[in-house]
Amino acid sequence: MNARVDLPLAFADWMAARQAVLEPLLERLLPPGSEAPARLHQAMRYAVLGGGKRVRPLLAYAAGEAVGAAGERLDRCAAAIELMHCYSLIHDDLPCMDDDVLRRGRPTAHVEFDEATALLAGDALQCLAFDVLCQAGADPAAIILLARASGSRGMAGGQAIDLESIGGELPLAQLELMHRMKTGALIRAAVLLGASCGAPLEASQRAAFEHYADAVGLAFQIVDDILDAEATTQALGKTAGKDAAHNKPNYVAALGLAGAKARAAELRDHAHAALAPFAHRAARLRNLAELIIVRSS
Amino acid sequence: MNARVDLPLAFADWMAARQAVLEPLLERLLPPGSEAPARLHQAMRYAVLGGGKRVRPLLAYAAGEAVGAAGERLDRCAAAIELMHCYSLIHDDLPCMDDDVLRRGRPTAHVEFDEATALLAGDALQCLAFDVLCQAGADPAAIILLARASGSRGMAGGQAIDLESIGGELPLAQLELMHRMKTGALIRAAVLLGASCGAPLEASQRAAFEHYADAVGLAFQIVDDILDAEATTQALGKTAGKDAAHNKPNYVAALGLAGAKARAAELRDHAHAALAPFAHRAARLRNLAELIIVRSS
Repeated sequence: MNARVDLPLAFADWMAARQAVLEPLLERLLPPGSEAPARLHQAMRYAVLGGGKRVRPLLAYAAGEAVGAAGERLDRCAAAIELMHCYSLIHDDLPCMDDDVLRRGRPTAHVEFDEATALLAGDALQCLAFDVLCQAGADPAAIILLARASGSRGMAGGQAIDLESIGGELPLAQLELMHRMKTGALIRAAVLLGASCGAPLEASQRAAFEHYADAVGLAFQIVDDILDAEATTQALGKTAGKDAAHNKPNYVAALGLAGAKARAAELRDHAHAALAPFAHRAARLRNLAELIIVRSS
Repeated sequence: MNARVDLPLAFADWMAARQAVLEPLLERLLPPGSEAPARLHQAMRYAVLGGGKRVRPLLAYAAGEAVGAAGERLDRCAAAIELMHCYSLIHDDLPCMDDDVLRRGRPTAHVEFDEATALLAGDALQCLAFDVLCQAGADPAAIILLARASGSRGMAGGQAIDLESIGGELPLAQLELMHRMKTGALIRAAVLLGASCGAPLEASQRAAFEHYADAVGLAFQIVDDILDAEATTQALGKTAGKDAAHNKPNYVAALGLAGAKARAAELRDHAHAALAPFAHRAARLRNLAELIIVRSS
């Protein structure tokens, strides 16, 4: 993947503007690090406020804006998705899971604090994600969407399959299912929850968002596998080369580097095609599909 | 505490009737153990369906019925509370937390399965609790109530203070705060969420429920400390004597056995007094306050 790509300047400005709203909002939504239990609150803040690409909230913003959403409700929806994502990162990094020491270029939460604090910080961030989504005026269907994207039939289930598969082999269809659950489900939720902040969706719009989200979700994971094989730990901000080192089923092993890159590009094209009904209003979703493919970390 | 106490036969029948609805509902709400990822789903079922006193769902039922609630909505609300409680038990028992091997008379989830599976089962049960509460037609205020009762300012925060306090000393006020967060917050949520399934509460009714819940929540924890000191591991179905063995601040250490028992009885009386506005409609809440005091496990 090549980080030097021509993404429009307007897109960079748009991302910066959304992040300039999101970062202080996340900061305000998290309990102060001085509030008891201080160590727990500090760990929650450490895990959320330590950078990150904010891809999922940006997807929520772009989907919402494609159907006319804006303002506080969309902001909180984007923040809720990021809180859920950050909880999953903390737990995935724990010694009994992926046992990783580096995340977003810094020590993982359990290294910086301790395992118990990291575990509880993840637990509490999951609660906070639902809390914040409710503050966004989400209806029960939206809460259920986030809950199922994150639960045993979504993100947590995908991580379970991932752990079970270490050292074994997964047929490509199983590998794809695992990633649709582990990474894809929350990306899909980000798009659909963002879109739910606008005018009620027609069935064809919802289907278009779903096709787009499924394509970028899978592309995101394939690019993750490519970066794991190609990039350095320093560039990634997390440990590189883990799939090969742990003999984890992945797309580079399944398709080869060139095959994986071709598949990612194909999925980007699917994502673009799915957005046709939104015409120019989906420009940011198109940009994000491109960014997901060309990112270098 | 003495398990041989005269609780009305009608109360025992009432409990059995509610449990006869709750157990098969929990069974249906959990993904089948045959569904992939099978090990994860089996661990979720193991942790939830393995017995337990179901005190929190019973409190939800009793509070709901005191204000005329009944039916599927109340059932699902009770189930959601129990799912949240079961997630917290799995995580509390993990090696990096209380490191316990026995729960409800059986090996803890991470012993029966493995740490990663137990961690993910807890994560997924938390999601499922929010999912099921939404299925109960809960409004955003109810979801936020459950989220805050479970998060860093509630249950997870209480557990963090508990872990921090090991080997140290907590002034009685701090010990009480810890338990109000760790145990009391979810008990309070059980009562208020059950009550939210009935007719809209008047402010005085809500205050009465809150006083009742705060009293039984604290009494529950004091009795836990008494049982930890007095009962056998076999009778408890979980490891006894842990507070003393780990030098954990607790009510028996703080007040002595007799003092702790007197405080529990006093709180039971407070709970009964709080229920005055509901007259005979609060009979089951009174019975539950009694049960919480006299239980032997």
